Amino acid sequence: MNARSFNQWMSDIQERTEAALDKTLPAAALAPARLHEAMRYAVLDGGKRVRPLLVHAAGQISGAAPERLDRVACALEMIHAYSLVHDDMPCMDDDVLRRGKPTVHVEFDEATALLVGDALQSLAFQHLADAPVCDDPRQQIRMIRQLAQASGSRGMAGGQAIDLASVGVQLTLAELEFMHIHKTGALIRASIALGVQCGRPLAEEQLSSLDHVGKVIGLLFQVIDDILDAEADTATLGKTAGKDAANDKPTYVSLLGGTRARELAAEMCQDALERLAAFGDDALRLRELTRFIVNRQF
Amino acid sequence: MNARSFNQWMSDIQERTEAALDKTLPAAALAPARLHEAMRYAVLDGGKRVRPLLVHAAGQISGAAPERLDRVACALEMIHAYSLVHDDMPCMDDDVLRRGKPTVHVEFDEATALLVGDALQSLAFQHLADAPVCDDPRQQIRMIRQLAQASGSRGMAGGQAIDLASVGVQLTLAELEFMHIHKTGALIRASIALGVQCGRPLAEEQLSSLDHVGKVIGLLFQVIDDILDAEADTATLGKTAGKDAANDKPTYVSLLGGTRARELAAEMCQDALERLAAFGDDALRLRELTRFIVNRQF
Repeated sequence: MNARSFNQWMSDIQERTEAALDKTLPAAALAPARLHEAMRYAVLDGGKRVRPLLVHAAGQISGAAPERLDRVACALEMIHAYSLVHDDMPCMDDDVLRRGKPTVHVEFDEATALLVGDALQSLAFQHLADAPVCDDPRQQIRMIRQLAQASGSRGMAGGQAIDLASVGVQLTLAELEFMHIHKTGALIRASIALGVQCGRPLAEEQLSSLDHVGKVIGLLFQVIDDILDAEADTATLGKTAGKDAANDKPTYVSLLGGTRARELAAEMCQDALERLAAFGDDALRLRELTRFIVNRQF
Repeated sequence: MNARSFNQWMSDIQERTEAALDKTLPAAALAPARLHEAMRYAVLDGGKRVRPLLVHAAGQISGAAPERLDRVACALEMIHAYSLVHDDMPCMDDDVLRRGKPTVHVEFDEATALLVGDALQSLAFQHLADAPVCDDPRQQIRMIRQLAQASGSRGMAGGQAIDLASVGVQLTLAELEFMHIHKTGALIRASIALGVQCGRPLAEEQLSSLDHVGKVIGLLFQVIDDILDAEADTATLGKTAGKDAANDKPTYVSLLGGTRARELAAEMCQDALERLAAFGDDALRLRELTRFIVNRQF
């Protein structure tokens, strides 16, 4: 097994993801220059790169080549970055701060922010189709399909729509969960599913168990996000804190209270770790990453 | 050869495209219902379906199966529809009328319009990856890549960015052409290129000749669009007429005058028809469609 510490592994993946994104995004000098500059601004030099970390951690389970994982990680991160750019726009969350920097529509303008999101989504699919990410091209087509589904109206974009419709509405825990399974969960689940598929084929029951883990980690991520949004301050978070309450948005904290939300996170974490134990050392990084997601402070 | 008239062929393709889109789009009852309703509103029951017509006409050249062409046609039409929804938004062209109906952000709201565009783009790629559109899966991956490239910052979205930057700016004919090759041209060119690839393999020089035809038809389409925008009235056009001049946007008409713009269209049409003559009867529909695009009044 790799003896590097988890922190070292994590910063290695973050570094190689940054390099891969830098190479994938069109140069800022290339026409239309302002659009490319804004696309780079939206994606580079920011974020925890949680989805790329999940892709690489999941890829270890099937022994996938890091170069393939980089490609999948970039595609997922570009979809994630596009969603943040659009979410921050005045007609959505109307936020001015993201990853410690002015949001794209503030730094550039609204029309550019709209096009940045649109073009990043196209680039994600272009990149995923640009070179092999697995041995079987039919499986690669299925992976493209899976990313598209996770991004669309039955995935991330659909979750946003449910989120919009929930402002000022009293949701049940089941409804809140339904929203987050789509809004944040779909892409996190896809990160694990796609990362695993870059390596050797796994058994159907292994894939299904990892898919459950992906679903749990996706929700877990959101529970923690809600706790941090309620407790942390803007400087630590690098984005506007307390905005869920300010926007009258239902969260795990507003529904369950902070203590029960923390307990729920611990239970989910336990569920994921127990399933991952079956994969032994191959799932070491994914277990560490799961714990990291629960314990993060930002 | 097929003895049906061109008009009959055209309305057949429009009908089967409508049916295919109806089947591809999520049902309006499916959650999130408002988003799905708005997606259907944006795509169904409207438009000339120029890109689907081009896909089917190009597919005849390589003898492609109509069901495969339907799939490619739907993907292209969803990309096109998403771009219209986003273009009409207040931060872009701020238009209230499209295809004779209120635009999506007027009929629904801005946030929904944003998500409709985002989700339609995802659905286009999902649909194109959902079943075989050619015999070789590696070629299908290349086709997905091609659609993504035509949609992104070096294609349609990039053309929009150049368009935004050109308001109130005096462009040369070469700069105007560069803008349109991206903004409208990329997707029209892709319609022909992707339609052809659904059938039997063609020789490299045939593909390259058809790609030139696609480029010419793309520009031709825009020249005619500019002429119609300058000359027609809103009721005939089904969208706001005269808005290029009102927005101080450079057009072929503002640069060349109406007469020279008409001559340019005739020359381009001749160029395309001469190249298509080499394909004999197989290119009948594409020749007819080219003439139709030049002579259209709406």
